This record gives sequence, C-alpha cells and structure tokens, in this order.
Amino acid sequence: MTSFSRPSGRAPDQLRPVTIERGYTRHAEGSVLISFGDTRVLCTASVEDRVPGWLRGKGEGWVTAEYGMLPRATSSRTQREAARGGQGGRTMEIQRLIGRSLRACVDRRSLGERVITLDCDVLQADGGTRTAAITGAYVALCDAVSVLMKRENLKRSPIIGAIAAVSVGIYQGVPVLDLDYAEDSSCDTDMNVVMNDGGGFIEIQGTAEGHAFRRDELDQLLALADAGTRQLVEAQRAALAD
Amino acid sequence: MTSFSRPSGRAPDQLRPVTIERGYTRHAEGSVLISFGDTRVLCTASVEDRVPGWLRGKGEGWVTAEYGMLPRATSSRTQREAARGGQGGRTMEIQRLIGRSLRACVDRRSLGERVITLDCDVLQADGGTRTAAITGAYVALCDAVSVLMKRENLKRSPIIGAIAAVSVGIYQGVPVLDLDYAEDSSCDTDMNVVMNDGGGFIEIQGTAEGHAFRRDELDQLLALADAGTRQLVEAQRAALAD
Amino acid sequence: MTSFSRPSGRAPDQLRPVTIERGYTRHAEGSVLISFGDTRVLCTASVEDRVPGWLRGKGEGWVTAEYGMLPRATSSRTQREAARGGQGGRTMEIQRLIGRSLRACVDRRSLGERVITLDCDVLQADGGTRTAAITGAYVALCDAVSVLMKRENLKRSPIIGAIAAVSVGIYQGVPVLDLDYAEDSSCDTDMNVVMNDGGGFIEIQGTAEGHAFRRDELDQLLALADAGTRQLVEAQRAALAD
Amino acid sequence: MTSFSRPSGRAPDQLRPVTIERGYTRHAEGSVLISFGDTRVLCTASVEDRVPGWLRGKGEGWVTAEYGMLPRATSSRTQREAARGGQGGRTMEIQRLIGRSLRACVDRRSLGERVITLDCDVLQADGGTRTAAITGAYVALCDAVSVLMKRENLKRSPIIGAIAAVSVGIYQGVPVLDLDYAEDSSCDTDMNVVMNDGGGFIEIQGTAEGHAFRRDELDQLLALADAGTRQLVEAQRAALAD
Amino acid sequence: MTSFSRPSGRAPDQLRPVTIERGYTRHAEGSVLISFGDTRVLCTASVEDRVPGWLRGKGEGWVTAEYGMLPRATSSRTQREAARGGQGGRTMEIQRLIGRSLRACVDRRSLGERVITLDCDVLQADGGTRTAAITGAYVALCDAVSVLMKRENLKRSPIIGAIAAVSVGIYQGVPVLDLDYAEDSSCDTDMNVVMNDGGGFIEIQGTAEGHAFRRDELDQLLALADAGTRQLVEAQRAALAD
Amino acid sequence: MTSFSRPSGRAPDQLRPVTIERGYTRHAEGSVLISFGDTRVLCTASVEDRVPGWLRGKGEGWVTAEYGMLPRATSSRTQREAARGGQGGRTMEIQRLIGRSLRACVDRRSLGERVITLDCDVLQADGGTRTAAITGAYVALCDAVSVLMKRENLKRSPIIGAIAAVSVGIYQGVPVLDLDYAEDSSCDTDMNVVMNDGGGFIEIQGTAEGHAFRRDELDQLLALADAGTRQLVEAQRAALAD
Repeated sequence: MTSFSRPSGRAPDQLRPVTIERGYTRHAEGSVLISFGDTRVLCTASVEDRVPGWLRGKGEGWVTAEYGMLPRATSSRTQREAARGGQGGRTMEIQRLIGRSLRACVDRRSLGERVITLDCDVLQADGGTRTAAITGAYVALCDAVSVLMKRENLKRSPIIGAIAAVSVGIYQGVPVLDLDYAEDSSCDTDMNVVMNDGGGFIEIQGTAEGHAFRRDELDQLLALADAGTRQLVEAQRAALAD
Repeated sequence: MTSFSRPSGRAPDQLRPVTIERGYTRHAEGSVLISFGDTRVLCTASVEDRVPGWLRGKGEGWVTAEYGMLPRATSSRTQREAARGGQGGRTMEIQRLIGRSLRACVDRRSLGERVITLDCDVLQADGGTRTAAITGAYVALCDAVSVLMKRENLKRSPIIGAIAAVSVGIYQGVPVLDLDYAEDSSCDTDMNVVMNDGGGFIEIQGTAEGHAFRRDELDQLLALADAGTRQLVEAQRAALAD
Repeated sequence: MTSFSRPSGRAPDQLRPVTIERGYTRHAEGSVLISFGDTRVLCTASVEDRVPGWLRGKGEGWVTAEYGMLPRATSSRTQREAARGGQGGRTMEIQRLIGRSLRACVDRRSLGERVITLDCDVLQADGGTRTAAITGAYVALCDAVSVLMKRENLKRSPIIGAIAAVSVGIYQGVPVLDLDYAEDSSCDTDMNVVMNDGGGFIEIQGTAEGHAFRRDELDQLLALADAGTRQLVEAQRAALAD
Repeated sequence: MTSFSRPSGRAPDQLRPVTIERGYTRHAEGSVLISFGDTRVLCTASVEDRVPGWLRGKGEGWVTAEYGMLPRATSSRTQREAARGGQGGRTMEIQRLIGRSLRACVDRRSLGERVITLDCDVLQADGGTRTAAITGAYVALCDAVSVLMKRENLKRSPIIGAIAAVSVGIYQGVPVLDLDYAEDSSCDTDMNVVMNDGGGFIEIQGTAEGHAFRRDELDQLLALADAGTRQLVEAQRAALAD
Repeated sequence: MTSFSRPSGRAPDQLRPVTIERGYTRHAEGSVLISFGDTRVLCTASVEDRVPGWLRGKGEGWVTAEYGMLPRATSSRTQREAARGGQGGRTMEIQRLIGRSLRACVDRRSLGERVITLDCDVLQADGGTRTAAITGAYVALCDAVSVLMKRENLKRSPIIGAIAAVSVGIYQGVPVLDLDYAEDSSCDTDMNVVMNDGGGFIEIQGTAEGHAFRRDELDQLLALADAGTRQLVEAQRAALAD
Repeated sequence: MTSFSRPSGRAPDQLRPVTIERGYTRHAEGSVLISFGDTRVLCTASVEDRVPGWLRGKGEGWVTAEYGMLPRATSSRTQREAARGGQGGRTMEIQRLIGRSLRACVDRRSLGERVITLDCDVLQADGGTRTAAITGAYVALCDAVSVLMKRENLKRSPIIGAIAAVSVGIYQGVPVLDLDYAEDSSCDTDMNVVMNDGGGFIEIQGTAEGHAFRRDELDQLLALADAGTRQLVEAQRAALAD
C-alpha cells in the first residue's frame, strides 16, 4: 500500500470546511465572508446606477469584479498594491476571471442599466483564494439583487443560475480536490474550475506546474471538480436559505 | 433646557463600545480586529529583518504604517486605490500619522535592525478610523514584540509606553468624545488626539470645519480626549492580559 | 543663569524677519513672495471660471492649494516630484493643510462658481515652509479677490477674515516661536498653528518628536502661537495697505 | 443537411495556413515571424547573462515573456499601452501565459544563470494571437538556444520538448479549430490549449462566452486541440529543419 | 590621399538602399514598411472621426504621431516602455517631431474634423529611425487620405506637399549623408533635416556630439540633406505610383 | 515703406534686456536668476559625489539638467506636472536639450566622478524659456565649479568654453532675434540656437510653424543668432566678473 496522505489529512475528494457568513459588513448591498478552511475572503456586492460608457443607452447592465489581498493575508508580508502604484498581473488575471464567471449567471438585460461590482478582498490566504472568491461573490450578488428587487420593485430576478468554483490538482501523483497552500505550492498540476448548478462549465484554467498532464489525469480532475462544485452550490443554497 | 442629543444617544463624554480581538488572522506576528462601534479596523504587525537604506548599519530599527480602506467599507463604494494607480492624499496623511504615533512608544535601538510594519485596513467605516487604527495597532505591535522576544530570546522589550488615540469634536455647539460618521460629517471642529499612558500628548490634529474654535473650547476637547484615551489604554491592557 | 540660546540668537518669542512682496510675478491674479527669514515661498492665486464636478450647479466656489519645493530649495538636492512620478505624502499633507486653512476665510457662496488655486512653491527652505505658505497665500488670495471684484463688478468680497500661521516648538526644553531649520531638525515638539484675526484656531497640528509633551507645555506653545500670528496678521495688513 | 459553414470556408478541424519565418530581424538571438492566417506575430528571443534577484546564486536560469500589440494591428486603432502608462490586464494575462508555457519545455538548471526573454509583438491581429505567439516563441527559443550553445560551447540543450498552442471553440454549435476574429467574436466557448510534443497538456484555458459548455463538448474541443497542436509541432520541426 | 571610408563602404553623399512597401498590414488606412538599409520601420496611418477637445467645433482636423521600438529592435534588448510604465524622453521627442513634420504637409481645414494618427514602430534599428519614420509616414498618410477621399467622396486632397527626412553628420571629419548606427554612435555632429518637395526646410535639429560645428560644416551638411531628401521624395513618388 | 514693428517695439536684431543675478538662493553651489525681458528662470547647479550606474568606475563625471515651470508662470494656469503624475513631452525635450548643451562645455574627465545637476525652473514665462535657461545655467555651472575647485583644491577647471542660447524666428516675414511670447505664438519659423564663445554651433533646432523656410531665411536667422549669443556671452562674462 502507498502511504499517500494530504498535509491536512483530508481524503483526495474532500473539500475543506466551508463557511459562508452573510451580512458581514453593513454598508454593502451584499456582504459575505467565505472560508475554505483557513482561506477567508470578504466578498461585497455594490450596486450603482450607472453603466460604463460603452454600454450607455443599451438597456443592459454590467457585473464586474475587483480582487485584493491584505498585505499580511500571506505568510510573509506582500507589498500593498496601492503603495506600489498599481495592480499586478496576478491580481488583474484573477479579477477578470471573477468578473467573467459571475456575468455567466446574470441576464444583463433584466438587470437594467446598473453596475454591480464584486469586491473580493482576501483577509487570510491558504490557497484557493480565487475559487473561494467566486463562490462567495455569488452569494453576495444574490443578496444585492434581493435588495435591488425590493428597492426597485422588480418582478424578475436577473440571476439565471448558480456559480461555484473550486481548485483541483495533482499532488504527489494523486488527483485531489480543493488544494490548500501546502499542496498548491508543491503540486504538479493546478486547475481552477468554475461550474454552474446545471453541471455546465463556465471556466477551466489548468496549468502544468511540473510535468505536462495527461488526458486521463484531466478526466479525473474534472470529475473531482464536478463533485466539489456540487457541494459548494449546496452550501450556497443553505446559506441563502438562512 | 436645551434638547441636545447625539445621533447615537451617547453622553457627550461617552466612547462607543470598544472591542479588541487578538489573533484575528494567523500569519501576522500581531493581528488585531478593533471596533469603535461600527468602525472596524484590522491591524496587523509584520516583522521583517531589514531596515530602510538610510538606517542601514546604525543598529536601530524602524516602525512604519500603511492604511487602507476596503472599497465598500463606506456607505457608497470608494474606488480602490490600487486600481486608481496610487494612494491618495488622505491615505498618506493617515498612515504617516499612525507611523509617527507608534514610533513614539518604541525604543528603536532596543528593537535592533528590524522593521515592524503596521497595516491598518478598514473593513467597515463609521468615523474615527484613524484613531481606532492607532489604538488597535498598538496591541498588534505588542503581540509582534512578544513573538520577537520569544523567537530571538530578547531580554528587554523595546516598547516604552502605551499609545491610544481618540477623536473629539464640537457637535451642535457641544464638545463630544469619539465622533461617529453622522457627527463627523456635520461637526464644527474635528480633532484627533494621540496620547500615551502617562497622559502626555503624542500628536494633536485639530481642524475647524465650520467656524474657528476658541481656546476654551480647545480646553474642553483636550479634557475629553484625556479621559477617552485613558479608557482606551485600559481596554488595551485588558485585551493584552487575556 | 541658564545658557539657553537659539541658533539664530532670537528671543524665544521672536519671529524671524518677515517680508511680503506683492506682485512678484505678473501673470497670476495674486502673486506674493513671502520670507520668514531665509525661508522664501512664492504664493500665487489663480482664478478659474470652473468648479470641480462635485460642486457643479451648487452656486458655490472652491479654494484649493498645491505645494512644491524647487529641487535645490534644500541644503542637499531633493528629487523633483514630477520626475519621480508623483507627489509624496509630505507634499500632499501640506497642500491639504494650506487648502483647508484658506477655505476657512472664504464665503464660498459669495465667491460664486469659481476656483481659486493657491500655488505655494518654496524657492528656499529654512524651516516653516508650510506656515509661511499659508501666511503668504492669504495675501495672494486677497489680491486675486480684488482683481475678481473689479473684473466682475462684485459688490461684496467673499473674504470673511484673515488667516496666518506659525510654527512653535520645544527646543532644548524651552518653548520657542517660529522654528528655523536648525531648531526644527533637533526639537522635541513641533507644532503648526493656523489662526484667524479674531484669535480663533483654524488648525492645530502638534507632534511630539522626542518625548510626549505635557499640558502646560502645550499651553505655553499656544500662547506663543497666538502672539506670533497676531504679528503676522499685522504684517499682512501692512503689505495689503501698500 | 445543415448549412453550417465557417466564415473562412475552412472545415471545422482545419487550421489556417501557418507560416514560420526564422531570422526575421537580425539583432535578436532568435527572431521568428509566425502567421496563423492573417494573424502575424513577431517573436524574438533575447539572451541576457543575468537572473532576477530571487534566483541569484541558485544556478538556474529563467524564461519570461512580454506581449504587445501594435496600435493598428487591430481593425480600429487601439491606444498604445506605453502612452496609456502601463500594460492592461489582458496583456499581463497573455504574457504570463506565454512565459509559463515556454518554461514548461526548458530545463532551467541546464540553462544556467541566464534569462531568455520572449517578446511577442502582434503586427496584425485576426484572432488567436496568444496561441500564435506561443507557437512562434518556441521556434525563436530554439534558435536562441542554438546561438547560446555555439557561443558558450554548451554540450546539452536545455530544451526538453516542443510546445505549441492553438485555440478551439464552439461556433454556431459546432466545435471548430483555430478561431479567426470573425469566429472568436461571436462564438459560445473559446479555449486556448497549450500542449507538448508528447501529447501532454501544458495549459488549458476555456471560457464559456455564451452558455456553459458540457462535458461532451469539452471532449470534442480537446480532441481538436490535440490534432491541431500535432500539426503545429510538425510545422515548427519543418521550420527548424530549414 | 586620405583613407577615409564609411563602415558601410558608401560614398559620403550616398543614401542606404531605400525600400517602401505599401499595404504591409491590412487593417490600417495606410500601412507602409520602410527600410533605410537595415533600419525598418512600420508606419501606419489611422483615420478617426473625432478631434481633440481643444479643436472641437473649429472645422479643422489634426495629424499626430506616436513612435515606438520593439524591445529587440536594438542590438541589446531595450526595456519595453509599456512595462516600464510610460514613454521616455527620447520617444516623446521623436514622436513630437514626426507629428509636427507631417502636419506641415496637411491643410487641416480640408481634412475636416478628423484625426489621422501616424504610428511609427521600429522593427529593426540601425540608425536614422526617426528620419525613416517621417519618410514612411508620409506615404502611409497619402494612402490614408486616398481611402478617405474615396470613402467620403471628397474632391480635394488635404495634402499640400511631400515631406521627407534624412540624417546628416560629420563622421571622422567628413560630412556624410544618412548615418547608420556605426556612424551615428561615433560621429561628431548629428543632424536630422526634414524638407518638403519644394526644397523648403520643415525642421532642422542638429547637435554637436563632440566639438562644436562651424558654419561651413553646417552648409555642407545642409547641401547633403537637400540632395538626400530629393532622392527620398523620388522614392516616395515611385512607391505611390505603383 | 512697410510698417513692420515688433509688439515690443524692439529692432529685429535687438535682444530683450538681460539680467543675471548670481547667488539668488543660498543652498545651491550655483544659483542664478536670469531674465530675458519678462522671462525669468531660476537656474541652480547642484554638485553630488556620485555618478549614474553606467558611468561608475570610468573616472568621468556627468552634467544633467531638469526643467520645470511653476504652474502660474504662464498667462493661464498650467497643471503641475508632479500632480499630473509625470513630466510631459515638452519638458523632457527641453531638459534633454539643456543637458546636452551644457555638457558641450565641460571636460567630463577633469570633472571627476561627480554629477552636476542644473535645475532650471521658470518663475515667469514670456517666450524663450529654454534659451534663457541654457544661458543662465552656464553661469550657475561656473559658480558651482568654483565652489568645487576651492573645496576640493582642484587645479584645473573642467569648463572648456562658454555656452549661450537664443531664439530666432520669422515674424511677419521678417527675421527677428529673441522672440517674446507674443511673437513666438504667431511666428512662421521658430529656431533655438546654442553656440559657444568660439562661434561654433552646439545645437540648432528650427521648426517651420507656418510655411517651410528657405535657405536664405535660414542664413539670416543664423546670423542673428550668432550676434545674439555673442552679446549673451558678454553678459555672462560681466556677471561672472562681479
């Protein structure tokens, strides 16, 4: 028998404990603190009655995202992007991914000429911050839409499905679900998968860190992601039902 | 009888409820979530074994601070400074104040050639974020110094006193302690006072927002600040004793 | 007898020689070269028929300030902020102070939808540049308002009082007025005080550089500042009467 | 029979004509103009005898990439990033992808303490610029390594495999290979796949533009990408054999 | 006899081989690849139906230019300006020169409220990039104007003359025409001359690199430039006649 | 007879009154306020014992320049470059010209491993700021070199000649010397000429603003510039002799 074990002792197909706390701060239309184990991300949804210039007069809204990490969310201090004079490539890549993912569950015509901005700020990082951000931002988005529907007396929600995301990877030769930092920093393949509640793929971003991954490995990873996002969609539903 | 009342119903010399939660995040040497009522600031202290260029080889350390606000800490969304390409004047002014204030309680020679960076990030704003930040950063600094003393086997703490800060102002003609946002945005005079546990002044920054303030008003404000910071120093002690 | 003496030989309550030269350059509506001893600041007031976006249509004007130092105003060359890519924290802090101070003497409704920008550029620095800037900017502002009243045939000046500023500090244990660079760089407490001609406080910014300052020291400093700003207001009046 | 046809008239599994011109400019150690139909990218490989700070003294090299578009590579003029003051999110995302992909075929220890920078500049864009860039950069890298081996008398090439990339997508319901701009701008799913000459995956980035894609669609896309990158690896070999 | 010889073996008054390839890329209204020997510059002309704010409503158009160098156009790699965060002084100086030069051959009133932007991107540099850029940009401008006249059914071309540019300099004491990099980097005087097809001067920029140049040397240089630009105007005519 | 007259009433070959005031500020090694009529530029020369990285260990020094305009040096307020986030193209072009011009009169080997920075800040602008800056910077440079020779006990001055600059142009068809703003903004040709005291040309920058200029016009302009710079060299000598 091989002695494979994950640093956390989890089974290969086991998520970290997930908690979703709504109403974490009071100003935002939606404000959610989501934890994937020790990864904690504050996701707020802000509604503004404006659209970007290129959408003006088209009767559609927009959903966008920004991502940040507090300087000491990480094990050694990271320089503050505002102090460094701008957002780095990794930040831009992540916030573009979050924005695209959440737009996939919104009917922008029903939203009307409004922008919803999802700010995802990592308070504590332990791997998987972007997937936690997407999963939490969906809940914040739902809360903001509820506020909007009450406030504006809308009849139909612009939300057309649920969105959740999880990372998968190959750690010491074994496909595993929901990598924490210890796994992420030494795994061979790292993949972020965004899915909807119908089991459809919204986004797949897989990177071979060590050697190239084979087709059969990919299939195993996608199966893990499918099972993982189903559980996350359940957790979102439970949180929204409270 | 006049019908003066504060929006919160507090007495003129009454602080908002103060809570100080240590160990709020796990990576930083010190990590404190401080609340002054609805104002919540996460203060982390990070130790690094380096000094700025101009201090190299002098056998002294440095204490510095950075300040930020999450975009939706405020009632309407504020643009993210990292996305805007740099820190604004208000941010710089505040983080310089925090840094100066905390340096006033540290013997930089005993600290040795190290930098302690105090990151103060506002999760939720309701007035008084800079004074909450200073008060919380002091506790985070104490925790970081404890870690450092254990790790480096230092015999003497470089901390030479306690530092706390509070705002005072003249609201509807009455000097009041610890302004919340509703008071701050419509008061006549706004003053931030940083004091040490010996009752000495570290910093006074007072601004006449409406009309100029008189000497007798100033005296009343300073008395309120003195009483307020004494209570905050007590709260710090209680938190550190846990 | 103690042997206290200031590097300049001045008495503790003695200002440096102050000169105020109006019309120093010809394009600006107001242009004043002010000297506090060897500190020389060129203050210009520029009137523009526009308001910032957030004031549009409100029938009010705005007064703002910018501050700069020529690279060799200082004893060793300072990097040019334009070449470095932006204004530093100290610059922003100072120009915000100048702007707030001057707004305190203007009725923005009488000003009408106009901006007056006070550019304070230090030609030579020897301590106290921000207080010289405020004191000189007031004179430049008066001149600009006179031009405006003639040009626009206004009946009432929007200026509702005089503003002057001075630094005070504790040098070798003795409270002194109007610190020069030699004193400023080795004093224990440094305070900038902005007052109006009614003896009211507009702004107090005091910093303990060495040890914390006591209440009685603060009282002495404020008395010095009060006497100093009275003399500066006189100097402004004399200059404006020419 | 359905009337599906691609705007270009190509079969669903047909690449655009690919040309690879080595030695396109004369200064770079490797310089390749690659065309995927009307998409033309100049890929240069530059060798420098330095490593980034964090790699110093580790006996390893680095491979990195930068990406740019000439302002009028596109059908309407795009603002020059240098004039706008920095690289945008899309650019950063793409150059990070190119760098990761090419590092996957290099043994950084054999490379020694050197940096090879792959500059991929789009002269003309018609969809698929990032995949053309990766495919061309591999050839430029090979040429630069040949120069290096001759110049430094190295015995072993640090290149451990070939890398090629292609886009696939679902256009009007049909999975197709190598999208041009007309297809890319109206397709439902867009995926970039980077593979090596052993049929292993280096990177998969798939995005649902319209509706989510199903697992069977994904399988078809991956099969197209596999066949497409095999042809591209052949084209690279042929070019390098000249 | 002296043994003067140019590194390239050219006669002192001999241009490098000049080639002008129109339609080099397909999106731009004008797209020209010009070569002065090994110097190759891609010049595109883009027409946009807008004018800068300060020209709005005046019934005039504008012609402007931007200049860039691909990072490995040079013998060692130059940092990408977009990555460095902005255009450097040399780039700005050159693009201002190109813009001014081309505006000299356009009747901006006939152009109407349009902007033509000339992007000059150096693919390979061997001296004289700015003069090649101006000479090529003129051809691209002509092509863009032709497109515009057809598209808008204009009767009169806004182009009022031809513009060409060449460098001249004193190399080893001898005035020479069209310096390549080997000459440029070690010459005593370097001058760029922009002329029109009537023999008039549009711009002269001469710099003494080593010793000051005398009036008689200047006269010889201007004569060379005059002869050189006449040949370039011929080459432009030939290219446009194809 | 035609009724040509310059706005200032000067003869075509007449300079504006030139004044050169040395020791204008006290910190810089050289500090000169130069006036060409209403154009006033403060030129300081700062000596630093360092060289740029690329000159280290070569036994040579460097001379460089920076240029700035106070915001209200101009008839309407110009935005401060430090506030705008960087120096514009015009500023860079001018400071590069000043630096090149002054380097032409310095033997950099005799200077030793030092940098002299010439800061030219325009206090009041009325045309010709760059030529006034060069002419004044030369005097500041001489003063700084004198300080250096005394301080370092150098035997030989690194200054090998005098440098002065003047503008010439064609105003209403007539070649004129030393254009003021009224002439500069409506002239046909504008040329800046930098010469040395031996009558040699250091830099010529001529631009046709309206129509192209002919060779005979150029000859007249150069003759005016030659006579003008001779007078300026005289004024420099007289100032340095004081």
